[in-house]
Amino acid sequence: MTTNLGTVRIVGAGLLGTSLGLALSKLGVDVVLTSHSQKSIDLAIEYGAGRAAAESDNPNLVVVCVPPAKTAQIVAAELVAFPSAVVTDVASVKNSVLEDLAELGADLSRYVGSHPMAGRERGGAIAGRADLFVGRPWVICSTSKTTPEATKLVESLAQAVGAATVAVEASEHDRAVALVSHVPQLVSSLLAARLVAARPSDIALAGQGLRDTTRIAASDPNLWLQILEANSSEVLAVLKAFEVDLHSLVAAIESGSAQTASAQIVKVLETGNLGVERIPGKHGTKHTEYSQIVVMIDDKPGELARLLTEVGQIGVNLEELKLEHSPSAQIGLVELYVVPEAEQKLIDDLVARGWRIAG
Amino acid sequence: MTTNLGTVRIVGAGLLGTSLGLALSKLGVDVVLTSHSQKSIDLAIEYGAGRAAAESDNPNLVVVCVPPAKTAQIVAAELVAFPSAVVTDVASVKNSVLEDLAELGADLSRYVGSHPMAGRERGGAIAGRADLFVGRPWVICSTSKTTPEATKLVESLAQAVGAATVAVEASEHDRAVALVSHVPQLVSSLLAARLVAARPSDIALAGQGLRDTTRIAASDPNLWLQILEANSSEVLAVLKAFEVDLHSLVAAIESGSAQTASAQIVKVLETGNLGVERIPGKHGTKHTEYSQIVVMIDDKPGELARLLTEVGQIGVNLEELKLEHSPSAQIGLVELYVVPEAEQKLIDDLVARGWRIAG
Repeated sequence: MTTNLGTVRIVGAGLLGTSLGLALSKLGVDVVLTSHSQKSIDLAIEYGAGRAAAESDNPNLVVVCVPPAKTAQIVAAELVAFPSAVVTDVASVKNSVLEDLAELGADLSRYVGSHPMAGRERGGAIAGRADLFVGRPWVICSTSKTTPEATKLVESLAQAVGAATVAVEASEHDRAVALVSHVPQLVSSLLAARLVAARPSDIALAGQGLRDTTRIAASDPNLWLQILEANSSEVLAVLKAFEVDLHSLVAAIESGSAQTASAQIVKVLETGNLGVERIPGKHGTKHTEYSQIVVMIDDKPGELARLLTEVGQIGVNLEELKLEHSPSAQIGLVELYVVPEAEQKLIDDLVARGWRIAG
Repeated sequence: MTTNLGTVRIVGAGLLGTSLGLALSKLGVDVVLTSHSQKSIDLAIEYGAGRAAAESDNPNLVVVCVPPAKTAQIVAAELVAFPSAVVTDVASVKNSVLEDLAELGADLSRYVGSHPMAGRERGGAIAGRADLFVGRPWVICSTSKTTPEATKLVESLAQAVGAATVAVEASEHDRAVALVSHVPQLVSSLLAARLVAARPSDIALAGQGLRDTTRIAASDPNLWLQILEANSSEVLAVLKAFEVDLHSLVAAIESGSAQTASAQIVKVLETGNLGVERIPGKHGTKHTEYSQIVVMIDDKPGELARLLTEVGQIGVNLEELKLEHSPSAQIGLVELYVVPEAEQKLIDDLVARGWRIAG
């Protein structure tokens, strides 16, 4: 696949800058890398994320991948340094960057704020991976001042690395990420913080639930402080609503009435069910847009390939697939996810071909 | 591997009963299954989790795998029905079961409370898997009344299915799981509950962090109500401490002093770092026993089947497989999980055959 992105200049060789450089380089795009950290640049170049910046570079597009608190200043400088280039950034907050750029008198016609919703709890060039953006939303925050060409170029960038673009205003973006990203980060940190004073023998009983709920508590405090500072009013609103719900639960359990406690506990658990069902598609446990068909296959080589070949022959497109296979089980469970309209046909045809459908 | 467990009778064919039956049957243990749900029994037996109970059964060991609120009553009945058998249960709370049994006048010399720290957000026989207990802690709560032989038999059960036994008193267990399991469940539900009133366009920006922190919010409310009711005083203590921390954070952000807010945010994030570091073993990824290889495939029919056919030709056994596919992306990511020894060969052979490995 080739793209018409031209030369892309990436400022910052952390997780996002390096991952973007890797993804673009694999597509044959000319990527030049720069960073205040020579060590990061060396590592990113060694990984194959691009080449070192040179005087003669004439980038079409500059992607600023630096911490949020430094973003506006560097975007402004890049707009000046490359007067015909489009400049975007990938900071997790968008409104404060835009306000700072307006204050700095930056040329907002060539600036497009953006935010790939992709990350890992590990940062740095060393954590970079070319597939970081595949299938993830990439928010594009154009303004009335942005030229259509600038917006289009940044959209092409996101699409080239496999992301799904989402056009949102900066302030809407910040409200949304307070809910889906910033408050979950704080809640995860608060939950993990409870473990600090616990006995090792208690923590030894930890299962997957604790590991999942606290995974992002391992995130970089300095990076997150910048994000949370820049979006504190939106974060506060969500955090206060969470606190009200929590307090209702605590008060109900503390009331001494088993009935009151149980009613509130059930309410929290059931509302949680409804909430998690609203998270779209992949990665989670519920796949509400897709119908799930569970096929039982014998645990012998080639069975899965045979199943998928036959699904292909039936002519139904798989939206998602998960294999549950246990080393010691004689049967593997294959979860096929298809659009609801295709469910019955696929079940009928698989059964006709002798496959066993579970459930 | 053979064990000297004798005949094991499992009461209840949900996730835990079925998984235990699968694991023991693979080891050649004679497993008899019973449940109030004939449908679950039929499915569990078809999976290979054991045989139907018969009049002539004379189990050495009975494992009660029913919801917490029914556990004590069924344990007591099994102790009476099989007067020479050791009886254990797998309920997530231990002290209330013990108290109820004492009230019922049960023979506590042959009862050993236990709790395998293994679960999934999906329940039922259909979710059963033989490797559910591998590498997980399995808590054994003996009392001063338990005979050493009874304790030893339940330890043998846990070890036979690959779990690591942990001897803890019932009340200690309940205090520990309030911290590492019950409060994380409620916090995850409260977090997911915030999504109920959100705009779909906001939720569309969800990333992996939200998915991980809210995964267990999809758990069964009825099961969890029973657990939380039976352990409400321990849960309340942890929940109140969490609430105090949360309120300090809210108050600091609300104070209007950027310095106060930042100091408290950093404190929460850094304490969260320290807390998550205390969790033993693996962080995040579910399958540290296996190596993960991510293959990028074109989003066209038959590609996945072709990949799996070639993996079969290479002769490497897939332990697990996950497809990440986004409707709007042109590339699908296939995560292959193999034993670490097979990783390099599979990568080399796939690359030689022209497949693209990500990362």
